[in-house]
Amino acid sequence: MQEIYSYNNINAMTQKSDIEIAQSTTMVPISSVAREMGLDEELLEPYGKYIAKVSPDAIDEERMRSHHLVLVTAISPTKAGIGKTTVSVGLALGLNAIGKKAVVALREPSLGPCFGLKGGACGGGYAQVLPMEKINLHFTGDFDAITSANNMIAVLLDNYIYQHAADGFRLKTVLWRRVMDVNDRNLRQIITGLGPDSNGIIGESGFDITPASEIMAILCFATSVDDLKRRIGNILLGFDYSDNPFYVRDMHVEGAITALLLDAIKPNLVQTTEGTPAFVHGGPFANIAHGCNSIMATKLALTYGDYAVTEAGFGADLGAEKFYDIKCRKAGFAPDVTVVVVTLQALKMHGGVPYEKIKEPNVAGVANGFWNLDRHVANIRHFGQSIVVAFNLYAGDTAEEIEEVRRHCEEDLHVAFAVNEAFMKGGAGAEALARKVVETINKRPSEPLHMLYDDDKNVEQKIEAVARNIYGAGTISYSRKARRQLLRIQQLGLEHLPVCIAKTQYSFSTDPKAYGPTDGFHLDIADIVINSGAGMIVPIAGNILRMPGLPNVPQAVNIDVVDGRIVGLS
Amino acid sequence: MQEIYSYNNINAMTQKSDIEIAQSTTMVPISSVAREMGLDEELLEPYGKYIAKVSPDAIDEERMRSHHLVLVTAISPTKAGIGKTTVSVGLALGLNAIGKKAVVALREPSLGPCFGLKGGACGGGYAQVLPMEKINLHFTGDFDAITSANNMIAVLLDNYIYQHAADGFRLKTVLWRRVMDVNDRNLRQIITGLGPDSNGIIGESGFDITPASEIMAILCFATSVDDLKRRIGNILLGFDYSDNPFYVRDMHVEGAITALLLDAIKPNLVQTTEGTPAFVHGGPFANIAHGCNSIMATKLALTYGDYAVTEAGFGADLGAEKFYDIKCRKAGFAPDVTVVVVTLQALKMHGGVPYEKIKEPNVAGVANGFWNLDRHVANIRHFGQSIVVAFNLYAGDTAEEIEEVRRHCEEDLHVAFAVNEAFMKGGAGAEALARKVVETINKRPSEPLHMLYDDDKNVEQKIEAVARNIYGAGTISYSRKARRQLLRIQQLGLEHLPVCIAKTQYSFSTDPKAYGPTDGFHLDIADIVINSGAGMIVPIAGNILRMPGLPNVPQAVNIDVVDGRIVGLS
Repeated sequence: MQEIYSYNNINAMTQKSDIEIAQSTTMVPISSVAREMGLDEELLEPYGKYIAKVSPDAIDEERMRSHHLVLVTAISPTKAGIGKTTVSVGLALGLNAIGKKAVVALREPSLGPCFGLKGGACGGGYAQVLPMEKINLHFTGDFDAITSANNMIAVLLDNYIYQHAADGFRLKTVLWRRVMDVNDRNLRQIITGLGPDSNGIIGESGFDITPASEIMAILCFATSVDDLKRRIGNILLGFDYSDNPFYVRDMHVEGAITALLLDAIKPNLVQTTEGTPAFVHGGPFANIAHGCNSIMATKLALTYGDYAVTEAGFGADLGAEKFYDIKCRKAGFAPDVTVVVVTLQALKMHGGVPYEKIKEPNVAGVANGFWNLDRHVANIRHFGQSIVVAFNLYAGDTAEEIEEVRRHCEEDLHVAFAVNEAFMKGGAGAEALARKVVETINKRPSEPLHMLYDDDKNVEQKIEAVARNIYGAGTISYSRKARRQLLRIQQLGLEHLPVCIAKTQYSFSTDPKAYGPTDGFHLDIADIVINSGAGMIVPIAGNILRMPGLPNVPQAVNIDVVDGRIVGLS
Repeated sequence: MQEIYSYNNINAMTQKSDIEIAQSTTMVPISSVAREMGLDEELLEPYGKYIAKVSPDAIDEERMRSHHLVLVTAISPTKAGIGKTTVSVGLALGLNAIGKKAVVALREPSLGPCFGLKGGACGGGYAQVLPMEKINLHFTGDFDAITSANNMIAVLLDNYIYQHAADGFRLKTVLWRRVMDVNDRNLRQIITGLGPDSNGIIGESGFDITPASEIMAILCFATSVDDLKRRIGNILLGFDYSDNPFYVRDMHVEGAITALLLDAIKPNLVQTTEGTPAFVHGGPFANIAHGCNSIMATKLALTYGDYAVTEAGFGADLGAEKFYDIKCRKAGFAPDVTVVVVTLQALKMHGGVPYEKIKEPNVAGVANGFWNLDRHVANIRHFGQSIVVAFNLYAGDTAEEIEEVRRHCEEDLHVAFAVNEAFMKGGAGAEALARKVVETINKRPSEPLHMLYDDDKNVEQKIEAVARNIYGAGTISYSRKARRQLLRIQQLGLEHLPVCIAKTQYSFSTDPKAYGPTDGFHLDIADIVINSGAGMIVPIAGNILRMPGLPNVPQAVNIDVVDGRIVGLS
């Protein structure tokens, strides 16, 4: 524990930004990364020297079975950041450092946060996936293909309505929205088809951000091209005046939409700052969507790594719950252990310390924030998971504060605890964490996964199971719109689907400003989105928006190109 | 001439669709294509085995000077199609077949026409660029990057207005529109920012198709990353209440937008059905934009080919005029010869033969359509260009009709004439055309390029020069909106820029239904778009729309994925 003192000023010591570290790291050709992990080069499609698409044929379900799956989640996020991706990458590096074969599976970044408030999503410091500029911007075009497929459906639907109006075809309700991979608040609610008749039929519409698209979820769940096409055909677009559902397949364009996604469904292979293989594929947000990378990417990580490290977005109330109840249910996964990331700054914010003071030593403030960790630990135990708390070290963290967190974890909560210094030291800084993870898997692995609900419960019961057990909600109400959707779900025979609740990440409740314990709060379901193609029901809790906005000074003003190189991307 | 008879039923003979021919053609690795033409592999960035981005460093201005530039244009298009890309690719194949070193430079296809009325844009039969499925769909992501950059500017602008409203910042006029690479008539005119205050400020907006984006034009004109960034900074977004212009650079985001385009500005290298190198880069339409591939792609073709074959979109009134007056002006190009593509079916349509009857032999009908060819030939001669007419052979064309076209070209117009059979026979079918092109370049090359107007004319004079000399307009009027823009152009000091008139491709006039000669028609300029970043002025003539719509039965319903392969893409 002593040596931690020497890293109290890690940022001051390195004086290097994430992108500077990334650009000064020598990468190995992606073909070598593949060869090293035993992946046949024939199954690779290179996108430049350092990125490749990998054929789903590379998945080996037999090999997967003997390998270990590690889920990385976190306490509730705050504006201080938490570094979940940094820990996920760091843990893979640490596992390699102690002689294990690890592969990491992550989500692809969205341009919205990248140009908005949060910045990129490739980890940080010496625990990043590379080439971070490419991964953060466009990458292999998957998000663009998803955007294009989503909007092509919207266009084909509008055109179908326009061209068939004379035949009496009409939809009473159009459920399909457009998407764009930006934070565009002005597009949340729009009127389309203004101007002369030839501009289509006037209607209300709107855009969500691409990570919220049902096509994104479909891409994450699809197990083959045929499965992808079937799911696209099953997308529900609206209802006619006799309340008959209208699906993509009714327009006979599921094949054309699948054609737009033929490259996008292949997982992307990149490398970490230390050459570890990383599958980065699919990128739904965990608040407004299901929050984890594609099933195929996780399967590839499990095929080629003795340890597959993957993450679920935001806090464990969102990402981890959806990982267990949706992704594991669909793919048959069950993590051997769940890692929960904590930071002192986030604990202090949950303990009521003002943002301006979270960098100051404050043991009491840290302890006041334990309620948040405790709740997440209890929640994860609901699923029968063994837990390792990964303490993500920041500059300025004091030994006394760290000791208080260790004591609480080991003595009060009886969960394993380790400090992660991968940001500063790469794999060498995550050996302790890696050892704790291996030890936990060997000595007290997770029980068989307990889902929160069975398929045969109805949607209200499923919402209730998540809201009461995980969020701590007291009462639950449904808007008239939501009630109508519940009825439709029943009529369409979709009650068996899992629920993916859209909710703010900042609180267990639906109020993003409600810090502190919120047990017994009232949860209102404002709307319910039916993702019949993806195979899930998305209840919208509270005022959560599926299209974010930009902050006063967006990250975009920091990004630049100097001498042909990108700078200021974080 | 005799042997042509045997190809009267070429489609019936082959029984193969474009995509079937494409998929059954064995491609060589793109690294071999590059090596073969003398391009250092270090300058390549592979996107899979058969596509590569090429560094602009590969351009050699010195070598370009001793090589020949061939422009391929056409008579006015009709719904019968014309095959300009097929002839462009075919000519390159033909040049190779007679022992010349040819490289072709083309535009990238847009998803709008690909899923709409027209289908893909990779040529046809045995004269295609490959892999056509990838090139037609997403390709290397250039269009997606352009869409993203364009819309990121829109978002950043809306956010700037929203965040600075309290400081009194306000724009009286917002000129920037969003884009999407689809035919979405419903998005032409929309109201954004509806709902609660947090959804932004209510405003009128709309989407153009991506090929009409100023970012597309900038990508086509940029000579370096720095030049790209400077041009993006110079994009005019609107005017405040004191009529001061507001540019992208006023938001300090030109660097971030450039970062989004760093891969997109590198030209793409692919191959033809016979392994000829093809640079496919940039894709503005020629009716609503300037209609030719990027300057950098043409420079690469000119560096590595003794003959660089490039095309300009739609009829010569649009594409060729813009190629000479805009692209050549900006890049210093001057074609050695211009090839004009004709087909019997198109000539018959221009001759008043009903669409249903254009496949029937009809020498008189063909002759009645000569007025269209004659006008284009006269127009091209305005620029001092030598001309070869390329007769693009279709199934069912009769020797008698072909002879009538040959006679008219050689005896009446005194231009070279050759039949192109590349669709059916590949390079072997374009040898005659290739020989005519080489012969014309050697014996009577074009005069130095005469532009239609000098930089120092004002915008009205430039519009007039094009409208009277090329379109044959009699009178010209300007809407109030256009007049105001003329004044602004003057005030902004942008009078020196060339004009890129947006006009229907179906008629010399602004009426898409006005077949036949339209000399003396009235041309109305409805609006004028200022592309101060790209460096051109875009007058909107008549009712031309910068966002197309889909037809009753779009191509999308024919496209499918069967056993993992795309079918039905044309």
